[in-house]
Amino acid sequence: MLNFEYQNPTRVIFGKDETKRVGKECKKYGEKILFIYGQGSIKKTGLYDKILSLLKEEGLLVYELGGVKPNPLISKVREGVEICKQENIDLVLAVGGGSVLDTGKIVALGAKYDGDPWDFFTGKAEPKEKLPLACVLTLAATGSEMNRNAVISNEETQEKLAVKHPVLFPDFSILDPVNTLTVPREHTVYGIVDIIAHVFEQYFHPVPETPLQDRFAEGIMLTLIENTHRVLKKLDDYDARANIMWCSTLALNHLIEAGACGDFATHQIEHELSALYDIPHGAGLAILFPQWMKYVIDVIPEKFAQFAERVWGISREGKDVKEVALAGIERTKQWFSEIGAPVSLKEVGIGRENLERMAEHATRLGPLGYTKKLYKQDVLNILEMSL
Amino acid sequence: MLNFEYQNPTRVIFGKDETKRVGKECKKYGEKILFIYGQGSIKKTGLYDKILSLLKEEGLLVYELGGVKPNPLISKVREGVEICKQENIDLVLAVGGGSVLDTGKIVALGAKYDGDPWDFFTGKAEPKEKLPLACVLTLAATGSEMNRNAVISNEETQEKLAVKHPVLFPDFSILDPVNTLTVPREHTVYGIVDIIAHVFEQYFHPVPETPLQDRFAEGIMLTLIENTHRVLKKLDDYDARANIMWCSTLALNHLIEAGACGDFATHQIEHELSALYDIPHGAGLAILFPQWMKYVIDVIPEKFAQFAERVWGISREGKDVKEVALAGIERTKQWFSEIGAPVSLKEVGIGRENLERMAEHATRLGPLGYTKKLYKQDVLNILEMSL
Repeated sequence: MLNFEYQNPTRVIFGKDETKRVGKECKKYGEKILFIYGQGSIKKTGLYDKILSLLKEEGLLVYELGGVKPNPLISKVREGVEICKQENIDLVLAVGGGSVLDTGKIVALGAKYDGDPWDFFTGKAEPKEKLPLACVLTLAATGSEMNRNAVISNEETQEKLAVKHPVLFPDFSILDPVNTLTVPREHTVYGIVDIIAHVFEQYFHPVPETPLQDRFAEGIMLTLIENTHRVLKKLDDYDARANIMWCSTLALNHLIEAGACGDFATHQIEHELSALYDIPHGAGLAILFPQWMKYVIDVIPEKFAQFAERVWGISREGKDVKEVALAGIERTKQWFSEIGAPVSLKEVGIGRENLERMAEHATRLGPLGYTKKLYKQDVLNILEMSL
Repeated sequence: MLNFEYQNPTRVIFGKDETKRVGKECKKYGEKILFIYGQGSIKKTGLYDKILSLLKEEGLLVYELGGVKPNPLISKVREGVEICKQENIDLVLAVGGGSVLDTGKIVALGAKYDGDPWDFFTGKAEPKEKLPLACVLTLAATGSEMNRNAVISNEETQEKLAVKHPVLFPDFSILDPVNTLTVPREHTVYGIVDIIAHVFEQYFHPVPETPLQDRFAEGIMLTLIENTHRVLKKLDDYDARANIMWCSTLALNHLIEAGACGDFATHQIEHELSALYDIPHGAGLAILFPQWMKYVIDVIPEKFAQFAERVWGISREGKDVKEVALAGIERTKQWFSEIGAPVSLKEVGIGRENLERMAEHATRLGPLGYTKKLYKQDVLNILEMSL
């Protein structure tokens, strides 16, 4: 186990109908709320009206920023920062999935900064403080509701970059599984792929002596797989949705990574894909991950074999370590297919045309990853294996 | 899964030789430190001198409160509160195991309260604020380093009671496994029993749909069992000590309980034993737990069978649920014996003489537990089964 520091101050309010507390909880932070949301699905489900009336019941003054896109844009963040500064907003309330929550994080951060919020992504500025931030989650996927990460795209530079800083932890997040009962099948699947990808990225590392971290990661994967089958049979299965939601939060709240070392290379390569092609993040991950696994298998074959055995129940009998490991990877790819995620670039209509450019761009600041350092040629190899 | 609220603000600094940071970290909170410790083992190991010199290097003014006993006393807490008030202490630094940390918690709490600190245990006062609290852990057991609980004994009333309140979370805790390498075999074992008992208490509940909580609990148990065997072969095995330490923290930092419901009846019954006889807490738990399990088995037989299968690897083949469940309980008792913990009251020299009195006292405020409500006669039955 590596030495580590761990702290996560976010207050989680979890459970059926806890959304009703949003007004009272927000009021603790002030009177002026900037309510951020996405492209209107919360208007269709009625959540928009519900939140608005809960906020108004408490006498809160509500400003709005709607229209956040799935790969959220820095231009939208700038709009939000402008409102915060002009209206002296007390609290940012982000209602949506990871894209809305990440937008909320950077809006809250930018509101307390004199320059352009993109500065935090280029390293020109270091986060210091943010406005209070509340979240109501409507999609189990990114873990943004209880972590210090935010990913934003810049439409001018065609970059998709992350900021990670303790100041970005939400002050509180309402995790009400009821708000995910209406998520369509496709988005449910992509969310699930994102969750399991986060676990992969903190599990397939070469750090020795992390048995508890391994068991927690395996626990999330097993729970997620079991509940994926349930939710795909019945999209409004409350218990399955609740279990998946809690998996999503614990998959990326820094706990299973503590003492180990995350390797987020696949996420970084995927960001190139979804920045350029605007495909769903989860689709890109499902395509790339089995290929990344095969590419790095020889660094940690025993870890891949442990995964095959404990998560997929693959017997070691009559196989050597690498055979077991490969069987686990194959099973993962097959599972992505079974649940309806693409497993090749071809399936989402992407050819060779930009692979080199993406590999170049992905590694422009240096090699990616930790388990195996990936240089431009490695990234290109993985992308070609994904065709 | 039940609805829940979860927040844990404690900053954990974990790893080899992280103790060296104690001076600099404490200095962030002020100049005057009350250094609390136990009965001198840290003087023998050199940790006392090391901490003192690290604090003095930073120019800090150090006051001391030594001599905290294994079942820590309210009289010692009162001494500490007195020093805090007289000397205007800025930070309480507790260096030791759970008894020292719990003393630190209530000293820090009492320092900000006008009345007697026992008031928090009787319900006469509600915790509101405390002095900043830092911990350096020297024994993996109670989880006090990252939770909101404290247990203190009152020598006058022969009571051992708990306070649980968010204000009691330590501000930061240094978890340096090196500080546990010299813990003698017996205390190591009792610490381990305490850890697994905490997991039992949050795992054997009747709440449906807690698959992730179950997997996390099982992960802690499996890791603990594997590493117990390693540490008992080689008491100064750093990796085994590190894994056990992280197990102890996660076993009782409220995470695995979130969405489920703890049943701490066995701990409460044990508090009667150790309040009256001053036996090690872990010894009392090892004696009582298998009997409690047998006593409540019919409420949740499937959960006990799951435990038998997943934790002890007991096959279900050819057995009905209750047989599997009972085999798991028997294996637990056998394991306690194997690692050197007592499994009957007789082994620690306790007879029938005070069983009735303890059962009476344990239930004086009402029945115990959640999985099965235990009235006086139930507690008496469990104590008699433990003879």
